[in-house]
Amino acid sequence: MANFASDNTTGIHPKILAALGSANEGHMPSYGQDPITEALNDRLRALFDCPHLKAFPVFNGSASNGLGLSQMLKPYEAILTHAHSHINADECGLPEFFTGAKLLPHHGDLGKISPLGLEIPINLAKNHAPHASKPRVISITQSTEVGTVYRPRELAELRSLANENNLLLHMDGARFANAVASLGCKPRELTVDAGIDVMAFGGTKNGAMIAEAVIIFNESLIEDFEYRHKRAGQLPSKARFISAQLLALIEDGLWLELAGHANTMAKRLEAGLLGVGGVQILYPVEANAVFVTLPPRVAETLLGKGHAFYAWPLEGENGYRLVTSFATTEAEVAGFIADCLKGAA
Amino acid sequence: MANFASDNTTGIHPKILAALGSANEGHMPSYGQDPITEALNDRLRALFDCPHLKAFPVFNGSASNGLGLSQMLKPYEAILTHAHSHINADECGLPEFFTGAKLLPHHGDLGKISPLGLEIPINLAKNHAPHASKPRVISITQSTEVGTVYRPRELAELRSLANENNLLLHMDGARFANAVASLGCKPRELTVDAGIDVMAFGGTKNGAMIAEAVIIFNESLIEDFEYRHKRAGQLPSKARFISAQLLALIEDGLWLELAGHANTMAKRLEAGLLGVGGVQILYPVEANAVFVTLPPRVAETLLGKGHAFYAWPLEGENGYRLVTSFATTEAEVAGFIADCLKGAA
Amino acid sequence: MANFASDNTTGIHPKILAALGSANEGHMPSYGQDPITEALNDRLRALFDCPHLKAFPVFNGSASNGLGLSQMLKPYEAILTHAHSHINADECGLPEFFTGAKLLPHHGDLGKISPLGLEIPINLAKNHAPHASKPRVISITQSTEVGTVYRPRELAELRSLANENNLLLHMDGARFANAVASLGCKPRELTVDAGIDVMAFGGTKNGAMIAEAVIIFNESLIEDFEYRHKRAGQLPSKARFISAQLLALIEDGLWLELAGHANTMAKRLEAGLLGVGGVQILYPVEANAVFVTLPPRVAETLLGKGHAFYAWPLEGENGYRLVTSFATTEAEVAGFIADCLKGAA
Amino acid sequence: MANFASDNTTGIHPKILAALGSANEGHMPSYGQDPITEALNDRLRALFDCPHLKAFPVFNGSASNGLGLSQMLKPYEAILTHAHSHINADECGLPEFFTGAKLLPHHGDLGKISPLGLEIPINLAKNHAPHASKPRVISITQSTEVGTVYRPRELAELRSLANENNLLLHMDGARFANAVASLGCKPRELTVDAGIDVMAFGGTKNGAMIAEAVIIFNESLIEDFEYRHKRAGQLPSKARFISAQLLALIEDGLWLELAGHANTMAKRLEAGLLGVGGVQILYPVEANAVFVTLPPRVAETLLGKGHAFYAWPLEGENGYRLVTSFATTEAEVAGFIADCLKGAA
Repeated sequence: MANFASDNTTGIHPKILAALGSANEGHMPSYGQDPITEALNDRLRALFDCPHLKAFPVFNGSASNGLGLSQMLKPYEAILTHAHSHINADECGLPEFFTGAKLLPHHGDLGKISPLGLEIPINLAKNHAPHASKPRVISITQSTEVGTVYRPRELAELRSLANENNLLLHMDGARFANAVASLGCKPRELTVDAGIDVMAFGGTKNGAMIAEAVIIFNESLIEDFEYRHKRAGQLPSKARFISAQLLALIEDGLWLELAGHANTMAKRLEAGLLGVGGVQILYPVEANAVFVTLPPRVAETLLGKGHAFYAWPLEGENGYRLVTSFATTEAEVAGFIADCLKGAA
Repeated sequence: MANFASDNTTGIHPKILAALGSANEGHMPSYGQDPITEALNDRLRALFDCPHLKAFPVFNGSASNGLGLSQMLKPYEAILTHAHSHINADECGLPEFFTGAKLLPHHGDLGKISPLGLEIPINLAKNHAPHASKPRVISITQSTEVGTVYRPRELAELRSLANENNLLLHMDGARFANAVASLGCKPRELTVDAGIDVMAFGGTKNGAMIAEAVIIFNESLIEDFEYRHKRAGQLPSKARFISAQLLALIEDGLWLELAGHANTMAKRLEAGLLGVGGVQILYPVEANAVFVTLPPRVAETLLGKGHAFYAWPLEGENGYRLVTSFATTEAEVAGFIADCLKGAA
Repeated sequence: MANFASDNTTGIHPKILAALGSANEGHMPSYGQDPITEALNDRLRALFDCPHLKAFPVFNGSASNGLGLSQMLKPYEAILTHAHSHINADECGLPEFFTGAKLLPHHGDLGKISPLGLEIPINLAKNHAPHASKPRVISITQSTEVGTVYRPRELAELRSLANENNLLLHMDGARFANAVASLGCKPRELTVDAGIDVMAFGGTKNGAMIAEAVIIFNESLIEDFEYRHKRAGQLPSKARFISAQLLALIEDGLWLELAGHANTMAKRLEAGLLGVGGVQILYPVEANAVFVTLPPRVAETLLGKGHAFYAWPLEGENGYRLVTSFATTEAEVAGFIADCLKGAA
Repeated sequence: MANFASDNTTGIHPKILAALGSANEGHMPSYGQDPITEALNDRLRALFDCPHLKAFPVFNGSASNGLGLSQMLKPYEAILTHAHSHINADECGLPEFFTGAKLLPHHGDLGKISPLGLEIPINLAKNHAPHASKPRVISITQSTEVGTVYRPRELAELRSLANENNLLLHMDGARFANAVASLGCKPRELTVDAGIDVMAFGGTKNGAMIAEAVIIFNESLIEDFEYRHKRAGQLPSKARFISAQLLALIEDGLWLELAGHANTMAKRLEAGLLGVGGVQILYPVEANAVFVTLPPRVAETLLGKGHAFYAWPLEGENGYRLVTSFATTEAEVAGFIADCLKGAA
């Protein structure tokens, strides 16, 4: 049976497990002062072609977002984000907890926010100072919560708006690998070149066990991060075991191989679904998620057969989300589509 | 060379690594809804002989303390604790961040707090309401930061004080295994029977990779914990891999075997140090830490030879902390003592 | 020239000033333990026909909201409110700061939220636990930010929704007097009978100098409020001078006399504006605010003549807000209308 | 009967009341944009001989401290202060709430902290980064909680320590007037010249009704304060009425006249008490407070006669605090001493 519930219901890739074993060599300094964490930093600097970046291993994607954001703004400032972004809709208020700041949620097509949509709220807030929180950060998700990706041009437009308004850019990159694999561009093009100041770099959803990192591209934001890291409960005492996972992902391009596979499976799923009567694809399939409306009979059939996936009420009564992963097989996709066709018959 | 820097500079026990591999079987529900986390709960209920306890896997010891405490009190309340406790001295303000509450640090002999020392501050605070934060929780560390342990009788006295003042009891059990192994009593005697409401149960310092848990013994404090769990960035998406480590520790008594070994190494270290001229043992060695003053020549010799351990300024200019672990070998201890003797010669 | 900028650009009513003088008699216990604060409580209990309510004098309307809300929910919970409510749009994140909770803003006609609009977000959040903050409070503003008022029937519907979902009701009553004066009902009908648990009772916008109160109707929410009161910097040391203002307002019905006058002036303003070409009234005028679109020439003329009022960008390019107060005179209104007509000519 | 309970159990000085009446002239812009607040700033700049300072009127002394501090440091930083300081002992955790930072309380003679006592904790914290909060602010109270005052030389030593460690200096000046009156020096000598960065300037305890101000001397700390001011619920909508009180205090030296009177009454009280058998004066009487131990019979007699004052448990079983104020009369002092003598007879 296919499991399209989430890319975090999977286990971990064998190479990640092997990396944990390799990292288990005697004593190493704790709290990120170990050579593996240093090697991870070196490797990320090369990967992003950014010699001054600093990466901090953390346990959790939500915390990675919150921690990065907390370094970017003060409690009386505001974060502009899509209403359906993970930080606004799926983290139980963690970003507000970690930052003290206010989230200003806005809607936008295809799960993205655009300069056009943000200009008005930014100006409203500025003209209403100090009664409105001061806009300071734009946070985007790449790839987005609905499986779309921001193009470099879209990022440039956001950066331009940010520059005009003295704002910083944050990227939730829990599925950054899927975006890079999808666009086929260099990691740098979607981050450093796009003026991203801080990103949450995700590993857990891409085959790792527990492995995320806050990457700070903006050198002026690095100072004192270690205190926040500790104070938020995200400084791993045995940090080497987080870093080793991320290093294994990046080494030899495993991260793009796995994300690329997940993306391919999503495209294949989409292709199959297009042949099923009554099924509607709701967003361009650009990463590893397919949002659909399924006729009730189809949905029932699939669930009855034991396929796992979530109803997605934000997309209406018959809305569903299907997420592929590094572990998705062609057979799973084929079986799922076959059962769709049975249900639609 | 010996590494007595900390019990978190070690790697992980082979059985823990094996458990991670075993847990890596296909898809499982995320966010703690998996069967391994359920099995961990069952096993802990048996271990503590407490059928209603609930355990929540978390990533980090500091966060485990902060999260547990946050469920126990309101932001205008206060936590009574030893001035040198981990929550007061080593967590960069995390407990205040997670709880909003005020820590009221107090001194006490042997790294412990006693009812005698707490009565006065409790009464001062109560009589000064609402200008002083309302005392609500007593937090103790077992085994303590200086390697001593609370006896059941001492815990009973604290519980009695707590009852008189409507207080809850929290235990930082990052090294709980060392206390249990040291006293040879049942886990229940040091927790449920002692009226501990919530504890942070540690695995990372006892051979695990990344594995802690908040255990809630007081049934009335369980409700809604899942929200705090998520909001603090401590709800693991692939929770099974935390739970699997803890389960492996508890199964077959590995946790006590490893902690007992560390304790034994500490006693052996103490025994050796007693034979070195000018060395003073500062606290009873009851768990896996030995606090000493070392003559400067001895300290220099040891560091010169490559032994790793920390100066401990709280214990004065020549104060040092030596921590043993599951990975400490008799040879390390012997070599360390030999070098001590050389330095003292 | 007319000043319709806000009801807080006015001075204070002579009776309020006189009350301050009368309260200035010798020593009294500080921090709200004085007889004037006690008398205020007695008087409010009679006014609301609610013998167990407790009122706490505070300095500031925003803080009054935040403090009341902080007593109603936990940091992982959520407050449902209108997107344009004062707590969401005009307090620079104070409610989040005081409560730790998340605001879930929703739109609704006439500046009000309705059960119909809230049901979906409540269900979405509940089904997404613990990833979404737990809905716990509905907060409404009476009279609303756009000068409309909730009828008892509308409040009953919200209470019913609240009951079905285990929610509490909070009322921002910065302009509660205007609502009572407008509807001509008893204060109890809009609060106790409507199941309001906590309200912010406003005085400053209704002729007082610095005078607000948190009124807790729900007896189970009173305990320990004094700690929050103090911790938020809202427990006045010389509380008698806040209480004296509120007492003077309530005594002899001054509060309704002043609010009634402001309402009447708003109606008169509306009546005049209806006769001005090109002017549109945007909301029913039910309290002391009139929202309009003004032709540019009219607006320029008015501002040129020295009339004071704010552009209201939320209502579009030509949107404006006109607020009347206890101090508004018929002559001001007449002069303003006369200048409108000149501008429109 | 004498009332020595606190300087906030008094009413307000007639000139303050008159100033409120004078300020009640028509409409003025709200939220501190009024001419009276501007005049207050001008007057304070002259008083402190500091043309760039900025003063923000607030309601409350505790909040004045918390707000000022919040502008000085980040949540992972620490405030060094006396264990018995108001911010540590009397504000129910408000400073932690407003700042997120950790208070590091230390003891020191005569209610003061000294560089000698702070050097060790500062170094301990620095060497323990990031596990210990980063020291960033030293906060002192002038005059102190036990009625002593810091001399310019003592302030210079603290500034020197601050410079060596990149720290800022905060002053709780709830009773600053008493210190200035006591030392007879210029306000500037105890603030600007002493390198104080931010102070809480108190009026309420010195004859005002509700009147405090945050004064920022360090120009680099002024930016964005208006947002914190609003977000903390301390931005008065009718700010003119706070500013008018402070202006009335400063004009014509009323503040020093009132504080000087209170100080004189305290000295007279001390002189009388020195003649009472069994009474001990616990601290040098340098401001408006006298700390004593009273024989039980004396205390009983005084309380029986209706004199008001507080037992002060921090000073032991027979410890008491006597506070004088602008309203204290010579007759009150004389009557109190007479009753002391009766009690001691």
